[in-house]
Amino acid sequence: MSLDDSAPVATRGPVRVVGTGLLGASVGLGLSTRGVDVVLWDPSRTALALARDVGAGRLPAPDDAPVTLVVVAAPPDVTADVVLAELAAHPTAVVTDLASIKGHVLDSLRAAGADLTRYVGSHPMAGREKTGPAAALPDLFVGRPWVITDSGESSRDALLAVRDLAADLGAVPRSMDPRAHDDAVAVVSHVPQVAASLVAMRLRDAPHAALDLSGQGLRDVTRVAASDPTLWTSILAANAEAVAAVLVAMRADLDLLIDALDQAAQPGAGPETVPGALGVLARTLAGGNAGVARIPGKHGGTPSVYAVVTVLVPDAPGELARLLTDVGAAGVNLEDLQLEHSSGRPVGMAAISVLPGRAEHLQTELTARGWRLAS
Amino acid sequence: MSLDDSAPVATRGPVRVVGTGLLGASVGLGLSTRGVDVVLWDPSRTALALARDVGAGRLPAPDDAPVTLVVVAAPPDVTADVVLAELAAHPTAVVTDLASIKGHVLDSLRAAGADLTRYVGSHPMAGREKTGPAAALPDLFVGRPWVITDSGESSRDALLAVRDLAADLGAVPRSMDPRAHDDAVAVVSHVPQVAASLVAMRLRDAPHAALDLSGQGLRDVTRVAASDPTLWTSILAANAEAVAAVLVAMRADLDLLIDALDQAAQPGAGPETVPGALGVLARTLAGGNAGVARIPGKHGGTPSVYAVVTVLVPDAPGELARLLTDVGAAGVNLEDLQLEHSSGRPVGMAAISVLPGRAEHLQTELTARGWRLAS
Repeated sequence: MSLDDSAPVATRGPVRVVGTGLLGASVGLGLSTRGVDVVLWDPSRTALALARDVGAGRLPAPDDAPVTLVVVAAPPDVTADVVLAELAAHPTAVVTDLASIKGHVLDSLRAAGADLTRYVGSHPMAGREKTGPAAALPDLFVGRPWVITDSGESSRDALLAVRDLAADLGAVPRSMDPRAHDDAVAVVSHVPQVAASLVAMRLRDAPHAALDLSGQGLRDVTRVAASDPTLWTSILAANAEAVAAVLVAMRADLDLLIDALDQAAQPGAGPETVPGALGVLARTLAGGNAGVARIPGKHGGTPSVYAVVTVLVPDAPGELARLLTDVGAAGVNLEDLQLEHSSGRPVGMAAISVLPGRAEHLQTELTARGWRLAS
Repeated sequence: MSLDDSAPVATRGPVRVVGTGLLGASVGLGLSTRGVDVVLWDPSRTALALARDVGAGRLPAPDDAPVTLVVVAAPPDVTADVVLAELAAHPTAVVTDLASIKGHVLDSLRAAGADLTRYVGSHPMAGREKTGPAAALPDLFVGRPWVITDSGESSRDALLAVRDLAADLGAVPRSMDPRAHDDAVAVVSHVPQVAASLVAMRLRDAPHAALDLSGQGLRDVTRVAASDPTLWTSILAANAEAVAAVLVAMRADLDLLIDALDQAAQPGAGPETVPGALGVLARTLAGGNAGVARIPGKHGGTPSVYAVVTVLVPDAPGELARLLTDVGAAGVNLEDLQLEHSSGRPVGMAAISVLPGRAEHLQTELTARGWRLAS
């Protein structure tokens, strides 16, 4: 899906983007692609030059018209300060920020006596593993939720301007109360990050032979443990109260689990002697089942919208290309593709997601073309 | 990679497989494919029939020659009992089990006075998300580690028989002490499972609007929270001591983290006032970085052996197939392929892994063929 270049754009320039990392530069790129005049700023001359070079916008000029909208894409720990400065420097502009925590920024602004009628918080739920302006994409936000938080004092015009921004970038605007937003990201983003880091910390002292037994489960759980410590220290500190609350609840579950394991570890313990302990283990795991089933979307547990046809792909040149060509020749749209690594080699099995009504037809067609299907 | 059908097989039949789920049926399939006579047993008539139907082996017959090797692929909580029974029923056979915990099984066998000279523990580090005999694959173990644990009393012939089994299935035999093995899987497999379940448990009571903000990080961390509670209750109970030890250490890190967050949450707290707290946060995240970097392999953090070329794939039929055909036409081997979902649609960017020395050539060739590369 890409930006709908033919649809009308509501955002009027010039739009000022402050902070030209991945998010800021992508906002700039998205707007510039749609013909909106974007002026860029970043304290790093390199980041600024790179953003301009990838087409995210231009440098400010002395005779620029007053900016109508300022998008602050700064690290969370300096966001409030930058918003404050921008509100003052551009007295007719709406200012929004993209920080992943909303309440903390708002509290700081309120304490500083800022003009909250022109401030609207944003949090676009978009990103990539890569960072920096060179990784910016004009369609980074397409189809993604863009949370808009109203302090209660934002003017109607300001709220509409930010909603237009989100819509012009192809995102899906979603209104949330700032505190509800912060509680939400605590549980769906910040605590998972903490958990990944805690599990990964245990690997530091593990013997080399232990790490040789690493499997897909460990890799999945610890993938985000590679996150940038400086950025995440600011995020966690800015959402400390909400994150601590979730971690306290998690620690209570962990305490029960450790007690149950201690009982199960007793000499002579068996299913007959520690039924209570086994119950705690089972309820933890079943609780996890129930929780993960609530995550929307195909990898989340709620019934996938797609059917998966798994095909064995011989490890020879051109085989995967041939398979995809045959999928196309069968007239079936490939919705997603995942290569399964169970045999230790990257090309082994291809899991092809298709609309459920097309799965049987695809299986028939591929089998007829000599492909071997796995279940 | 598939089983090397032309290489000689050391394992002599008949080999008896007890328990025809994914692992047992895959052992049967792998051996049968190599021409070894495999007899199957499972307490479930359906699982047994299915395993036979997929080609994993045959049912026992009254005039069978004495089995030389028994492979017990039963749930961990009954494995010791089954091994004991099989040792008694087949007095000249070597018996191995595939349970993911070795010490507990060994302790039970020792306590029951079993003949440990004919027993060798195995743990093939292989699997799939799917389970059951219908999901069995002959090359499930190819290239995967196969841990062999010596009680100290296993005979040389028994150890060689199990090593031959692993090698005949294409696996990589690895010797480990049983306790060292259990400590290892506690940290690289069992604790990650627990962490995933604990994080997922917090989702049960989360508001629907919070779950709508779910991203890739949450999905990665909680993916294994969909695991089977009954199986994992037995695994955790069987490895309770080792798992509890790791969780106790993790809880200590969690306690420090919660204290630091509580400090950071104080009104008026900022980078100047809570330097100690921020240090704890940063050290947790950096510790996670260090840990995950120790995981071997391309998703683990240690420098990947492959270079990645990322290509924008227009969302139109046949485009991905065309891309892969062009990769082949450029004479470059595709080592791995991942579709990136940052734009909310499954087909958007294709991350192609190639040998580092081929990356630049591939970029040149693809660009010449009209493809747009992302950084």
